[in-house]
Amino acid sequence: MLRVIEIVERKRDGAKLAAAEIDRIVLGFTKGEVPDYQMAAFLMAVVWRGMDDEETAQLTDAMARSGERLDLSRFGRVVDKHSTGGIGDKVTLVVVPLVAACGAPVAKMSGRGLGITGGTLDKLESFRGYRVDLTTKELMAQLGRIGIVVTGQTKELAPADGVMYALRDATGTVPSIPLIASSIMSKKIAAGANAVVLDVKVGAGAFMRTLRQARELARLMVAIGGAHGLDVTAELTAMDAPLGNAVGNSLEVAEAISTLQGGGPADLREVVLSAGAEMLCLARRARTRAAGRAMLQRAISDGSGLAKLRELVVAQGGDATMVDDPSRLPRARSVRRLTAERTAHVARIDAALVGLASVRLGAGREKKGDPIDHATGIVLSAKPGDRVAKGQPYAEIHASGRPGDAEALDMVQRAFTWQRTRVKPPKLVLGRVRSA
Amino acid sequence: MLRVIEIVERKRDGAKLAAAEIDRIVLGFTKGEVPDYQMAAFLMAVVWRGMDDEETAQLTDAMARSGERLDLSRFGRVVDKHSTGGIGDKVTLVVVPLVAACGAPVAKMSGRGLGITGGTLDKLESFRGYRVDLTTKELMAQLGRIGIVVTGQTKELAPADGVMYALRDATGTVPSIPLIASSIMSKKIAAGANAVVLDVKVGAGAFMRTLRQARELARLMVAIGGAHGLDVTAELTAMDAPLGNAVGNSLEVAEAISTLQGGGPADLREVVLSAGAEMLCLARRARTRAAGRAMLQRAISDGSGLAKLRELVVAQGGDATMVDDPSRLPRARSVRRLTAERTAHVARIDAALVGLASVRLGAGREKKGDPIDHATGIVLSAKPGDRVAKGQPYAEIHASGRPGDAEALDMVQRAFTWQRTRVKPPKLVLGRVRSA
Repeated sequence: MLRVIEIVERKRDGAKLAAAEIDRIVLGFTKGEVPDYQMAAFLMAVVWRGMDDEETAQLTDAMARSGERLDLSRFGRVVDKHSTGGIGDKVTLVVVPLVAACGAPVAKMSGRGLGITGGTLDKLESFRGYRVDLTTKELMAQLGRIGIVVTGQTKELAPADGVMYALRDATGTVPSIPLIASSIMSKKIAAGANAVVLDVKVGAGAFMRTLRQARELARLMVAIGGAHGLDVTAELTAMDAPLGNAVGNSLEVAEAISTLQGGGPADLREVVLSAGAEMLCLARRARTRAAGRAMLQRAISDGSGLAKLRELVVAQGGDATMVDDPSRLPRARSVRRLTAERTAHVARIDAALVGLASVRLGAGREKKGDPIDHATGIVLSAKPGDRVAKGQPYAEIHASGRPGDAEALDMVQRAFTWQRTRVKPPKLVLGRVRSA
Repeated sequence: MLRVIEIVERKRDGAKLAAAEIDRIVLGFTKGEVPDYQMAAFLMAVVWRGMDDEETAQLTDAMARSGERLDLSRFGRVVDKHSTGGIGDKVTLVVVPLVAACGAPVAKMSGRGLGITGGTLDKLESFRGYRVDLTTKELMAQLGRIGIVVTGQTKELAPADGVMYALRDATGTVPSIPLIASSIMSKKIAAGANAVVLDVKVGAGAFMRTLRQARELARLMVAIGGAHGLDVTAELTAMDAPLGNAVGNSLEVAEAISTLQGGGPADLREVVLSAGAEMLCLARRARTRAAGRAMLQRAISDGSGLAKLRELVVAQGGDATMVDDPSRLPRARSVRRLTAERTAHVARIDAALVGLASVRLGAGREKKGDPIDHATGIVLSAKPGDRVAKGQPYAEIHASGRPGDAEALDMVQRAFTWQRTRVKPPKLVLGRVRSA
């Protein structure tokens, strides 16, 4: 039997671990045989020393093997989508129905929000009654029936990731590219799709601050996918300012519906079309990105994307009248408008500060398990590059009367950087990494 | 309240910690408020990022403050001695009685052996009945009465060190100079002596493999002592080959007695005189090292050192007839002699391999709490520099009939490197670091 302490010591000393060593510590920890203090020391040693591609693929594999792996082969080529998380990122809510409406089955397991980053499950729960706890059986049945599922991860999939992530969160061992990559990819592998589009966010509001880091994470995840027979494209997209205008659960759902109706903010639409085209290509429904984009545009203009969202909400027990009439979504008690003191251009919006403001308003959670308020949030009516005339509104604070409301308002105000001269709107899609 | 996770993250990111942060995590962990997995991640971050002198002094201080601190002021200048641990290191057994016989009160708290490194408590327990669990009250009374105590550390002294060391041992976080220095010095500070001589072992059989590492550890411990009003001298001594001839508890005790009687191996005698002279200087009993050495030589030739050892054994309940007649000490069942196949000089003896052999023979323990055999061990009748004629013995294996005996014999054989040409005996005392 391999001694766990020696595995920890070898990683501490910068050695490359063998497959059996990685299996021993990951599967041993998941079974409760390896104590959390040894795993904590190991994780810090990984943050320190890193892991090479082979070790990371092995780590991912061990985590994926820690539980069951869904077999979705009977549904044809199933495509998945994942974002590393950002502020105002409601891409899933728009792109998944569009892609499914184009005939590509999509099975997506999402997470909840934590800290400044929102979560798709929380957003979907804005639809009264929406269930995020489908069993594997329910998931399979729904995927077969309507070709779309968005639910929480079942406990049986990659349980190693769940216990390891909880420990990382408590021990300062989250920021490690191999650990982040294996956490994401182990779930994607266990979830059984054939292909996945990863949206790797880059910038001040994202976990990856620099394009270099993001590219390394993207490259690694694509490589891991390849080693597991998974077609992966990673798109690097900007997360300096929030994506779209809305930040906060119901507000983001309403914006997603509006985008499915042909409206919505230009930056959101662009990221949706880019990711969606890639999903259709990987699902072999489109031969080129251009053809994919055209299919998505059609699914917007003919209403089939919105209809697919409605089907999804109905199938998972949500109140579909809220899709038909977004004004029925939870609404905050008060709306405070921020107006420009002088005519100027928006140079930057600090996404992290806006995210923090949304947590203060109750739209996000400080720690796991905290309740959230689906009604509150922020609407940024001006985005970088926009000119706002003196006296015109540039942001709305949707609040429900919490002690943090005033602070949130102040944060949103401070999040904006203005300048007199014209500002070029920032680039959105910064790069793409594909399977070889 | 400082958040522990942020302290872990700051050390992970290479920041210098404030005194309050170090207090929070050390005292919180000792009280059971900080979970062991956070402490484990923190310790690995310290192994990674290190600590500067100020942080290390603060860490030591927090650990020393985690329990009681003995007040030995009524006994005048009390001197202590500590070795970082080596193979065949029985210096304490000789030097402490000699220094006490020269009139300097010595209160020494010792530890048990672990792995290839022996422990003074185990060696002293070769004297049937010898108690190593004196209470603080008993310790004080004995120090006042006979000026010498060698016992185990009481639970009340630096309890943070006990819990932290146990965790370090299980998480691969032992090898860190700031952690080693603070562990040693926190106990020395809490134990209440005015001065301490540290024997920092350097070489293949020691924790510090290079003179550079050993010098850094020595410098740091001297600095920490200085910050706490403790006079410290660190001597760097060679631990490539075992010290003296005997390795194993009773065998080492017999060698110590022989050294106190004016015999004993030359290398042991030299390290004893060097450390002892330093102890007498720090205790203000000798003005110069030369004067100190002369006093020690006298305590050997007039038998007062041996008499002091006898007093110690009697005071702590041990069988003093074993001091008078070392043949009464526990003896192994069989003695196997290794003889030279051809005439040659001993170039090197691998101390670690000899230490490992002693563990196989039952003289050491693989893990904390294992029982040991006081009778078994190895006697190296030839040391580096010695010439051994063909057919002459160079080592004895004292065994009690264990499965590991044959392997131990093989290890001792392999530990020797021979050469035809003459070998210069290695240097013993490699350097000295003193309080400014």
